[in-house]
Amino acid sequence: MRVPYERMYQEFYRVLVKRGFTLERAELSAKLFANASRDGVYTHGLNRFVKFIAGLETGCVDIAANPVLKESLGMLERYDGQKGPGDLNAYFCMRRSIEMAKKHTVGCVALSNTNHWMRPGNYGLMAVEENCIGILWTNTVPNMPPWGGKDARLGNNPIVFAIPHGDNPVLVDVAMSMFSYGKLEAYARAGKELPVDGGFNENQEITRNAAEILKTHQCIPIGYWKGSGLSLALDLVAAVLAGGRTSCMVGALPVETELSQVFISISMEALPDQEELMRRIDAALADLKTAAPVQEGKTVYYPGENMMKIRAENMELGVPVDEEIWKQVLAY
Amino acid sequence: MRVPYERMYQEFYRVLVKRGFTLERAELSAKLFANASRDGVYTHGLNRFVKFIAGLETGCVDIAANPVLKESLGMLERYDGQKGPGDLNAYFCMRRSIEMAKKHTVGCVALSNTNHWMRPGNYGLMAVEENCIGILWTNTVPNMPPWGGKDARLGNNPIVFAIPHGDNPVLVDVAMSMFSYGKLEAYARAGKELPVDGGFNENQEITRNAAEILKTHQCIPIGYWKGSGLSLALDLVAAVLAGGRTSCMVGALPVETELSQVFISISMEALPDQEELMRRIDAALADLKTAAPVQEGKTVYYPGENMMKIRAENMELGVPVDEEIWKQVLAY
Repeated sequence: MRVPYERMYQEFYRVLVKRGFTLERAELSAKLFANASRDGVYTHGLNRFVKFIAGLETGCVDIAANPVLKESLGMLERYDGQKGPGDLNAYFCMRRSIEMAKKHTVGCVALSNTNHWMRPGNYGLMAVEENCIGILWTNTVPNMPPWGGKDARLGNNPIVFAIPHGDNPVLVDVAMSMFSYGKLEAYARAGKELPVDGGFNENQEITRNAAEILKTHQCIPIGYWKGSGLSLALDLVAAVLAGGRTSCMVGALPVETELSQVFISISMEALPDQEELMRRIDAALADLKTAAPVQEGKTVYYPGENMMKIRAENMELGVPVDEEIWKQVLAY
Repeated sequence: MRVPYERMYQEFYRVLVKRGFTLERAELSAKLFANASRDGVYTHGLNRFVKFIAGLETGCVDIAANPVLKESLGMLERYDGQKGPGDLNAYFCMRRSIEMAKKHTVGCVALSNTNHWMRPGNYGLMAVEENCIGILWTNTVPNMPPWGGKDARLGNNPIVFAIPHGDNPVLVDVAMSMFSYGKLEAYARAGKELPVDGGFNENQEITRNAAEILKTHQCIPIGYWKGSGLSLALDLVAAVLAGGRTSCMVGALPVETELSQVFISISMEALPDQEELMRRIDAALADLKTAAPVQEGKTVYYPGENMMKIRAENMELGVPVDEEIWKQVLAY
């Protein structure tokens, strides 16, 4: 089933206003959710919207709160998210980071005390639309064991790199776990084997069996010990820059909240050799695509390359929805 | 065989002076090489030293050159490495990044036209010794296929995160390929299976057989498609920030040279809540170690935790060396 983008946006807007969001804030949040589904990130669009609305019951989101500047420390601005909605807080901080970049080439904003930011790529695309590189990451509740351990002590800590490239920006949007629990559940339901190793089974053997990983909750980090280290580093740097909670401290709370995030922007316009650099980005991407494919007849894609195609298709034909979830939204 | 640290340093120093390095520059470079072996990173200490000396013949390293400030663009300083020795260039830029951080909380330096920086962790430890977080990365010659492709189009682009933590800092020092070619060769020689998937065999199947991967040269990125994207992003950001060559452009040269690198420092001292943040780092690391181990009797370590133990051992008993390689140095 497909739903027109405008219709999806209007429904999200209606529900948010009904839940007490101001018109302006409902507009922005609805747009961010709808954009995620529009770009093919359904898990963080419609599917996440219903979780977000349900989560409002926990009281960990103050729908009226805005980030407040805690400290301006030279090249770093630190904001307290005041438990506001994670998407609106992240939008605010990315905007501020871009402003700083326009003035000082690089902008660096850190945010404490915020909530789940929904689709990370949204904020990377904000940078790209302003001709900036965007680098941003968040910590999360501990949901992944460190390499060598069985118990969740690390977050999967998604990171985004967004790089301007005409109408087809580069968008790397990856968590530090090989597969999200949502993905594992989808594979388990379908009875399909994971394409690569995803975690440990009960005998502490590495496996591609999603159902077995869901029993142990021992997912593996990308690159095993490497992603384990990267996850720890992203967490600690975010907490230090923001003056906020580490993943470990988030894990001590009843629900995932009071997260720490970092938003870095680099303005291409501030660079004297902007046009030459754009040509170099373009040449690197063109070169990537000349690699012979592993599977005959396929092509190598760069991250984000297909997004614009999916977006165009979804704007024309409507955005694919899970019918049950869509009905839930209509019923709110 | 073990060699006292001081002896190793003196031999490196002697050889570098003989090759024309000024006394001061020979001192620093010898120290950086010896420190790598001292800390257990033998591949980038003694073993790399002989490759470095041999590489001087190619003429791509100008042993007398220093980085020159190209542009000071607000929060970003850009240097031209002038094909100087990669270790001395990186040392210079990290020092400058730390200086900027002491003044503006965050320091950001980018370097173009430089050579292989040898052990990346050395520069992270410089930050930590100055009570700074260090984040630094480099691009490399294309040596890894993008996900879905057979031909090397991406660098393995090592990244370092160094985080102060008393006498035992966190040091994450990882390349974007799952295993280096050096590691693959070591496993192949020993006839041992890789602990996890490392690349593709000639039938384009993912394998743990190092010898088969050495035939195809198709190593895999950490996290498969994820590390492929991360590698690309690190390359493009480094080239843009430095105004330097992308991996693709480095690949067009006869040898690996004219690399692009980024050095970011964050001063803990510039942060008003430094002591509380140090406690949070400490608590996060302590928490990590409470995870039940996968293998009974083992412990979970954080990245860098064992380095100080190895360093103490090597300072007491001497630094382990490959006898053949050590003899080569003595014969220079």
